[in-house]
This record gives sequence, structure tokens and C-alpha cells, in this order.
Amino acid sequence: MKSIKVGLLGIGTVGSGTFNVLKRNQQEIAARAGRAIEITMVADLDTERAKKLTNGEVAVVNDANLVVNNPDIDIVIELIGGYGIAKDLVLKAIANGKHVVTANKALIATHGNEIFKAAQEKGVIVAFEAAVAGGIPIIKALREGLTANSIQWIAGIINGTTNFILSEMRDKGLDFDVVLKEAQRLGYAEADPTFDIEGVDAAHKLTIMASIAFGIPVQFSKAHVEGITKLQATDIRYAEQLGYRIKLLGITKRTAGGIELRVHPTLIPSARLIANVEGAMNAVLVRGDAVGDTLYYGKGAGAEPTASAVIADLVDITRLATADPEHRVPHLAFQPNAMADTPILPMAEITTSYYLRMHVADQPGVLADVTRILADSSISIDAMLQKEPAAGETRTDIIMLTHQTQEKNVEAAIAKIEALATVVGTVTKIRLEELG
Amino acid sequence: MKSIKVGLLGIGTVGSGTFNVLKRNQQEIAARAGRAIEITMVADLDTERAKKLTNGEVAVVNDANLVVNNPDIDIVIELIGGYGIAKDLVLKAIANGKHVVTANKALIATHGNEIFKAAQEKGVIVAFEAAVAGGIPIIKALREGLTANSIQWIAGIINGTTNFILSEMRDKGLDFDVVLKEAQRLGYAEADPTFDIEGVDAAHKLTIMASIAFGIPVQFSKAHVEGITKLQATDIRYAEQLGYRIKLLGITKRTAGGIELRVHPTLIPSARLIANVEGAMNAVLVRGDAVGDTLYYGKGAGAEPTASAVIADLVDITRLATADPEHRVPHLAFQPNAMADTPILPMAEITTSYYLRMHVADQPGVLADVTRILADSSISIDAMLQKEPAAGETRTDIIMLTHQTQEKNVEAAIAKIEALATVVGTVTKIRLEELG
Repeated sequence: MKSIKVGLLGIGTVGSGTFNVLKRNQQEIAARAGRAIEITMVADLDTERAKKLTNGEVAVVNDANLVVNNPDIDIVIELIGGYGIAKDLVLKAIANGKHVVTANKALIATHGNEIFKAAQEKGVIVAFEAAVAGGIPIIKALREGLTANSIQWIAGIINGTTNFILSEMRDKGLDFDVVLKEAQRLGYAEADPTFDIEGVDAAHKLTIMASIAFGIPVQFSKAHVEGITKLQATDIRYAEQLGYRIKLLGITKRTAGGIELRVHPTLIPSARLIANVEGAMNAVLVRGDAVGDTLYYGKGAGAEPTASAVIADLVDITRLATADPEHRVPHLAFQPNAMADTPILPMAEITTSYYLRMHVADQPGVLADVTRILADSSISIDAMLQKEPAAGETRTDIIMLTHQTQEKNVEAAIAKIEALATVVGTVTKIRLEELG
Repeated sequence: MKSIKVGLLGIGTVGSGTFNVLKRNQQEIAARAGRAIEITMVADLDTERAKKLTNGEVAVVNDANLVVNNPDIDIVIELIGGYGIAKDLVLKAIANGKHVVTANKALIATHGNEIFKAAQEKGVIVAFEAAVAGGIPIIKALREGLTANSIQWIAGIINGTTNFILSEMRDKGLDFDVVLKEAQRLGYAEADPTFDIEGVDAAHKLTIMASIAFGIPVQFSKAHVEGITKLQATDIRYAEQLGYRIKLLGITKRTAGGIELRVHPTLIPSARLIANVEGAMNAVLVRGDAVGDTLYYGKGAGAEPTASAVIADLVDITRLATADPEHRVPHLAFQPNAMADTPILPMAEITTSYYLRMHVADQPGVLADVTRILADSSISIDAMLQKEPAAGETRTDIIMLTHQTQEKNVEAAIAKIEALATVVGTVTKIRLEELG
């Protein structure tokens, strides 16, 4: 049986992980795939390092074009990252009739529509399981496993760095800055952690999942992206007292008016399985109309977990490539001519519950004023926590959990509450999802 | 585009669920699959009921042969259950060149090898996602999503009835018999619950997963099958005090000497995600050498969750059927000519940790005698709990958690402990897995 020849663009952490797993498990993988799959060519600017990592067993070049133009290569793995060179090379590989595997969530979330169109026209496959939640086969689950369902919503912990930080903040009662430094020391956060802690990475992944779930084009620019940098240890503590944990969730939901697409810190009931996903682990909870809730849990990053997804894509391609192109799994789950133009809702239009914390003067009438404002806005209160002022303090915290309401509604009420003379500073607002 | 015509054998709970979901989501499913998929013929002994359930929209017959012999039918769904008629009909459908989808775990676990061989020879696909863990796409995850991995072990809560009973026993401190009646009243347990509570159903599912994970033929007869009927509320309570929960787990593990394949009540640390899977829910934890631990959670039974898996198989077949047969996903994950004959270990040869409870006279030297026996058998003690005798009692319970050891080793030690004059009755032994 003819072996499948793979070219690798970029041999960093995931690239060398892929090379190593393919080699270590080559017999088992071939026994499943029915043919050998081998990396025969690697392009990397650091050719010396690339040669060392591949034990001199493969051709190493510093010009990626030599890989994408090589007629012997069947599949190109793109592990360069970013939107620039990576995009050019992916498009060149497609133009040359090669299938592509990529772990590049930024590329797919921003240029996926163009890339899939090119692939469709050329009759090749672009696979990207590794772009979302690392080794968890969530793309496959959404696109194939749950294909019978009308997906209603997805809520995912899809960034390990922020989940590690939030777990540590809760566990040890530490502030964000302190834990971030610790996470950097341990290698759970990068030297420049912006993409992770500001929610951009999670929003890339969420954007991809939303497209597959709802049959819409990728639209990263319309995602609401909010990270954890402003989250205070005190809110994690109050949430816990009320029976909730705070997670950075990517949430996408189908509603009558459109699709919600948002990444932000979220209170979820402590009893939910997903609330107990701690450390750098990822988990995605999916609600389908037929299957109900299913959850997928595992490592969302790292050399070999990501390699696991990259290699699964390689094997899938060897299979699907022999299928009639019209019978293949569509890139974004729905046939290109059956995609919907359902709008993405602006944040003002989304509906959820809220955690509100306000610092107030400890004097009669404050609570009456606040609850009157909420009632006038038709916002019902689900739970409340009022603390005794600390010794020598004349102010105290009031925490309220609301029932579901529209974001613009709660924003208007907050503006009124903040205008009260008895309320000090701003109201802290964190969204809350029951996921039940 | 030509629609796919499906014949349904048996329209009970899952059958009508499948009919309903296919109809309700027909547009979305067609938009994914690229063609309509419709049930055009139903065979059921109760034709009147079948006509009612399908609103008179499809041909209803009482002879299943009319479906499997119908040249217009592309795929046959077998939802009859059992090994007798179901097996004959599946083999006839295969002989007639039809693809088959089945939710019949008993059939696959006991006659899978013969069925897959027939399908292989005829070039058709037999799909069985619905046979394991209902709507959770675990077969797909194991067979395709984790294809890069050497699977090390699987531990699953794969029977909802027993998980519901165990959750209730723990939650309410009730005895098995009481909760079983409650479960029957609520519809979580059948009138004859033997297959569920004795572990047979879980062992069927585990047998199938073990084959896919390790590339061995299905060998249900070699599985160790132990249910929850003898489990006492007192052990659930003691386990909790030691930081563990008791679940009915299906465990299959690759070891140097062979493959462990066993279903039994198991202590697992309360902090593990899978320990927090409560009620009738299912979850499967898989360890792969590259990906690490991944977990898959959802409803393991019910009309529409199971229908979700059945329909996913229908769509998969429409795709894979157009692929070169040698490039399809093999029925048991590995190519038929690459299957291994790795032996299944007898229980005496398995290695795990143990919870041991003994009822002893409250007098000096008992503990010394017991610990001496364990030490002589090279069994290390990991934790111990000794209760004060109850008022007026002269006997007390000692609970020990051991480190890993071989089953035959612990059995021999138990025999010696039971022979001590100071030990009353038998020693309760429950296996313990850290899953860490």
C-alpha cells in the first residue's frame, strides 16, 4: 500500500510533538489507517534545530515553498501560526492540489471562509481539529457525532492559561497579577500572555465552533471578546459563597433574533460538571435538541495532545480523500450552498443572568433604591448577599444575582444604580449562566 | 441529489425517536449530509402502532424480510434487540448489500466478529455508535478522534440505571433494594433490571470499546461481569469518609501480560471529574499516550439521545460508502488483517488497589494480625479507618485501602484474614482505581 507523504511547515513544540507521535505509534497508526503516514519533508527557518529534532531522517529546508510545491507531498501540515505567511502557504498548498492540516485557530477564525472556498473549488480538504481545544476531538463531535441535532448552544472552557489562573485564584485566594506571574513561571502562560488573558484565543476557537454548530460563516470580528484581567479575587469569593464558580467561557447560542457569540468571565453553578474543570484543562459543553447535553474534556494545548488532533486529521484525510467530493464532511459541517446568514447579535441584545456587586453606604433606604431601579427595569432578583460592614467601615458590599434579562436592560439599570448618592464607585457586573 | 432510503426494523422507543428526529431536523440534516435521508419502510409486529407512530407516512410491514430484501432500501436500521432474529436480519441485510446501523450492544459484543467479517466481504458498513453510551459519540472518538494514540486504558460509567441507583444510595443513604424500586417507578430501571444491575449491559459496551481501543476481536465471554446488587450503603458511606465515591465502572486496560476487561463497583477519588457524574448520566474516560486523559459525557440512553447516534451513523455511511472500501474506517478501528490476539487476563491476574472492610472484635492484637498478613503478602496499606465500637457493641469495622497489587494476592490475604478468630464473617472487597 502506498504510504502518505506529509510535509511539515514549522517544527516548534507541536511540530516536533507530531513528528514524535507519528514515529512512536507508526505501527498502530498504520494498522488503523491501512497505510503508513510519514513526514518526509520539514520546512523551518532554523534548519539545524529541525534536523536535530527529526534525527536527520527527513529532508529539511528553510523555504516553505519547497514543501508546498513538492509534487511528492500529499498533505501539508501548517504549524507556523499567525495570518501572514501561514495564509499564503496554505492557499499555495491548496492551489497545488494538496490537502492541508492546520492548528492555526487565528487563521481559520479570520480567513476560514476564503480558505475553505479555495479548498472546495480545488477539491481538497483543509482539516483543523487541532485548532480548537487541542487533543479533544470536538470538531469531529460537532461536525459528525452530533450531526442529527439542531445545536442550541455551546459553552466552553477553551483556554487553558486562563482556566489555570482562575483555578489558582479561587484555590489560593490570590489576585490575578500574582497568579499570572506564577503561571508564566510554570509555563502555563506565555511571556506575552495578551491573547490568552484578554480572551482572544478563546474567541478564535469559539468563532470556529459557532460556524460548525449553526452553519454560518466564520465571523471573528463580530465576537464579543472579554478576558479575565479585571476579575477580582473578591468576586470569586462571593460567587463561591453563592454556590458558583467563575470561568472564562466561550458561549455561542442560537436565539430567535440571531446568534450570541461571546467570551467573558461567567458564573456557573458549582454543581455543574464543567464548573469542576480545573487547572489548564479544557471542556466544551454542547446542547443538542436530540442528544441533550454532552461534554468533552481534555488537554487543550501542549505538544502531544495537539499532535493527537493533527494526526487524527491526517488519517481522516487519507480516508475522505477517496470519497466522492460531494459526499465528504463539509469544512464547516454544512454544505457550502446551505450556509445561513443568521446575524450575530450585538452584546446589547444578548440575554443572560447577572452577578452585580455594588459598594454602598450602610444606611437605611439603599437597598430599597437599588431594588426599585431593578424592578422598574423588570429585572428579577434571584439571590442576594449583603455583608456586614467590616469593623470601623461605614460601607458594605451588596451582591445580587438576577434572573435572565437583556444586556442593554441591565446596563441601563446599572447606570441608574451608579448615579445613586449612596452607591460608591462602579457596579461590578459578571454574567451568569445556569447551563442547566 | 438522490435521497437515501432507510428501512427500520422495530419501532419502539429508539425507533420512534429516530423517526421523529429525522423528520424534525430533516432540513438541517440534509444541509449537513448534502442529501435527504428518509425512513421509507418500517417493519414491526405491531403494525397498527407503527402506522400511528409514523403518521401513515411510510410503508409499514410486519415481516422484517420485506425490508432487508427491498432493493430500494440503502441502509437498514436494526432496533429489534437480542441475538436471535436481529442477528439473522442483520446478516441478511449484509448479504443483500445493504449497510446496517444498529444500537444492539448485545449483538455486537457477542457476534460482532462474524457480522463484521460478513460486512467486510460484502463491502458494506455496519455502524453501531448507538450501542455504546447512547448519544455520546464515543465510538467515533475512539476510532477516529484518538487514532494517533496508543490507548492505555478506558474507564466508563456506561450504565445509567446503576449510576442512578448509586447516586441515590449515596445522596439519601438508602439501601440498594429501596432505590431499585424507586428507579423502577421513575422509569430509570426496567421491570426486569437484571442486565443492568448485574453489569451485563455495561460489559457488552465495554467489550466493544476494548476491541476498538486495542485492536482485538470482541470477546464478551471473557469479560469479568459484576454488578451492584451486593453493594451496601455502609461501604458507600465509608468510601465517602475516605474521599472516594463508588461507581459501577467498566475498565479495560492494556498491560504487559494482556488486557484487563472488567465491570465492577469501583472506588474513585471524589475529586475526579468522572466521580461527579451523577444520576442516569454516562461518561467515558480514556487515556491515550499522546492526548493524555479525555472524557466524554452525556445521556447514555433514551429515545432521542440514542436516535442522535443512530442518525449520525446514517450520515456517516452516506459519506464513507462513497470512499474506496480499503480507505474506510475499519469496523473495529484496526484493519481486519492487523488485529491482535492479545489475551484477556483472568481476574486473578489483574492489578488494582482495594478497599477492604472487616468486622472485628475490639481487642488488642487484631490490627497487628491483619497488617501482618497483608505485609506478608507484600500488600501495602494506603489508608485506614477504624471506627469506635457502637455503644454496647464489642465489635467494630476496620477499613483499609491498599496500594496496587494482583487480585490473586489480595484474595489469598483475605482468606487468611477471614480465618482469624477475631474477624467476624467475610471481608468486603471493593476494587479502587485512582484514575490519576
